[in-house]
Amino acid sequence: MQSLPGFRDFFPSDCARRNYITGTWRRVARSFGFAEYDGPTLEPLDLYRKKNSGGEILGQLFSFTDRGEREVALRPEMTPTVARMLIAKAREYRKPIKWFSIAPFFRYEKQQSGRLREFLQLNCDLVGDASPAADAEMLALLIETMRAFGLTAEDIVVRVSDRGAWMDFLAQQGVKDEAQAREALSVIDKLEREPRETLEKKLSALGLTLSAVEEFIKSARPAFFEKLSGNLEARGLEDFCELDLRIVRGLAYYTGLVFEVFDRRQSRRALAGGGRFDRLLSDLSDGKVDLPAIGFGLGDVVLGDLLEDLPATKARMAAAIAAAQAVDIYVVVADESRRTEALGVVQLLRALGRSVDYPLGADKVGRQFKDADASGARYALVVGAEWPAMKLKDLKARTESDLPQESLADWAGSLQTPAP
Amino acid sequence: MQSLPGFRDFFPSDCARRNYITGTWRRVARSFGFAEYDGPTLEPLDLYRKKNSGGEILGQLFSFTDRGEREVALRPEMTPTVARMLIAKAREYRKPIKWFSIAPFFRYEKQQSGRLREFLQLNCDLVGDASPAADAEMLALLIETMRAFGLTAEDIVVRVSDRGAWMDFLAQQGVKDEAQAREALSVIDKLEREPRETLEKKLSALGLTLSAVEEFIKSARPAFFEKLSGNLEARGLEDFCELDLRIVRGLAYYTGLVFEVFDRRQSRRALAGGGRFDRLLSDLSDGKVDLPAIGFGLGDVVLGDLLEDLPATKARMAAAIAAAQAVDIYVVVADESRRTEALGVVQLLRALGRSVDYPLGADKVGRQFKDADASGARYALVVGAEWPAMKLKDLKARTESDLPQESLADWAGSLQTPAP
Repeated sequence: MQSLPGFRDFFPSDCARRNYITGTWRRVARSFGFAEYDGPTLEPLDLYRKKNSGGEILGQLFSFTDRGEREVALRPEMTPTVARMLIAKAREYRKPIKWFSIAPFFRYEKQQSGRLREFLQLNCDLVGDASPAADAEMLALLIETMRAFGLTAEDIVVRVSDRGAWMDFLAQQGVKDEAQAREALSVIDKLEREPRETLEKKLSALGLTLSAVEEFIKSARPAFFEKLSGNLEARGLEDFCELDLRIVRGLAYYTGLVFEVFDRRQSRRALAGGGRFDRLLSDLSDGKVDLPAIGFGLGDVVLGDLLEDLPATKARMAAAIAAAQAVDIYVVVADESRRTEALGVVQLLRALGRSVDYPLGADKVGRQFKDADASGARYALVVGAEWPAMKLKDLKARTESDLPQESLADWAGSLQTPAP
Repeated sequence: MQSLPGFRDFFPSDCARRNYITGTWRRVARSFGFAEYDGPTLEPLDLYRKKNSGGEILGQLFSFTDRGEREVALRPEMTPTVARMLIAKAREYRKPIKWFSIAPFFRYEKQQSGRLREFLQLNCDLVGDASPAADAEMLALLIETMRAFGLTAEDIVVRVSDRGAWMDFLAQQGVKDEAQAREALSVIDKLEREPRETLEKKLSALGLTLSAVEEFIKSARPAFFEKLSGNLEARGLEDFCELDLRIVRGLAYYTGLVFEVFDRRQSRRALAGGGRFDRLLSDLSDGKVDLPAIGFGLGDVVLGDLLEDLPATKARMAAAIAAAQAVDIYVVVADESRRTEALGVVQLLRALGRSVDYPLGADKVGRQFKDADASGARYALVVGAEWPAMKLKDLKARTESDLPQESLADWAGSLQTPAP
């Protein structure tokens, strides 16, 4: 009996790795003053039909009819859920609304590198502010999230583009119909992946030439980019960001700034992507809630692969995984007649927030020290003949001292609390 | 467009409440040296058919056929998943294995108080030790988890029973067939909920009398209970636990100790339940992995309702929710010409792990202080004409001081880190 293809079992070291990624996401989003939200894992199928954002996603849904005859789907992305929530209650929150979520998503993808059928994603949205300062705040959040894993401007790049500039260019080239413009963008989206002849053929069917498109990409410089760069420079983050009009993003609802994060070697898919969707909330609420918005999504699969590949980020992750799996203290019961006292010590240390392990039954002291080493404990505390004093062994420094019972709480309180 | 009935939107305050519950679960489980694991949200339907643990659960599954013609189900409980994982890899881990998970589960329940169709559950298992010391460790973990929310022995009770003693009693009463014994236990499971005549009729069909059953419940005292009590007493937790043979648990796989947690007023369903399943891993692996095990599950819905009802636990939860939603510092930009410097300050503070908010655009200082108050910030840091010095306002103590730029990092480092 195995798990389904594309779905993961998280054994403790896998789970510690997952928590390292999601914990880092959470810590950085909070440092930016973003508030965490979440929605249901299962949603009405119509939520995805209505938004109609990606035909591709609709074809990958895990959808079915439930016992109450409702058409339902496992959520494939967060934007429809957060849009629903914002439309219901945006009025109750001060603007700008800054929200993030960390949640699993489900897509019936072909089995391939960097893709799973259940994956985690950080979603961040800033709602109610259309300024370049808001754009910069979101890009800074995305960059700081990557930096928190040890990734540098030599490892990754945020490629920034502008759907607004593209729409102006297309209109000026005679593509004035919105459906046609969208089709043109979907061709441009594949500039780096399709042969030139194919691209030329597809573009000419829309009245465009590849050379005009390439000239636009090379020379256009959207007005907002200077402000954005200046803002990021004030934070020391300008090296992470490049104007690159080849980025257009697949989803239909984007209106202005769009961006994707790649590793510099471009050996992988985009790690993250997002953009401005200033009309989506209004469109979905028939104009009742008219707020500009910008958001991005960052998944755990491609990111995790990249972190494994780079020696510095891999070492940092391995250290975090080891620390998360270690207990603080192992209590050695050197004299079974002191088991009651040992249980009291264990209880006290745990109540003070330390993680503590100990042998459930009588065991040789030597074997207990082996278990203490295996537990990753920094300290072994020996309860035995010396009671009410204990021997305290620092298993890392290989030092030993006496600890009287009355000093136990003070000692436990003095231990450094590991980073959350 | 609404969420499905029985499914929850977690707006920021709801999400902070959820995280308070799951964060408390995680902190206590870690303090006991338990390692976190997880499994897929979606599993092969056969995983639940094979274990065949609860006909009730099978009737509540969200199950369907996926795009690859697989019969699949949203997980309704954790035990089949963790059993599969243990059977695959138990050999690689030192015993006892102590694992916990925090995950969403899905059951198509009738809409009623304390029940949702998507809910969270803490699952803890201790594998490879059949001793009463292991039982006590698990009960202590369960009790400490409840205590961490401020619940006392006056609020809740762990009712402890013994399926082994019941099986002995039934055999001695002539119920020797296992299926019949299981049926008898399912009648006894309803002792507190069904009229006496109904119970008498059902028991007599199995060759039992209600008076014999009641006499057994009153007088039996399973041998392990003294050891269990003694162990809990060494931890100061004995007041939380009562022998109560009316508890038998519905699931078929339990073999010895079983227990449920109730609020003392018994106004609700069980908050948690569990027991020993010493034969399940062997049964599911055709004898390949033969390890005794004990586990429990604790859901978030009934627990959350109870925490809302008791003034002390409600106040503690409200404080945690408020703290989780507050930022540490609000940076006031009192002079727009210093925005670049203000962004640098924001960046530095965030990099030091503080959560920081600030105005994205030019705004009156008075309004900025209102936003600072609304953000829950303890401190407002004013960047303006005095640069490179700043005004530091403690919004709680209502005090003000000067903070030179070069002291910024030291000051930020000195702030107390809130409990994780």
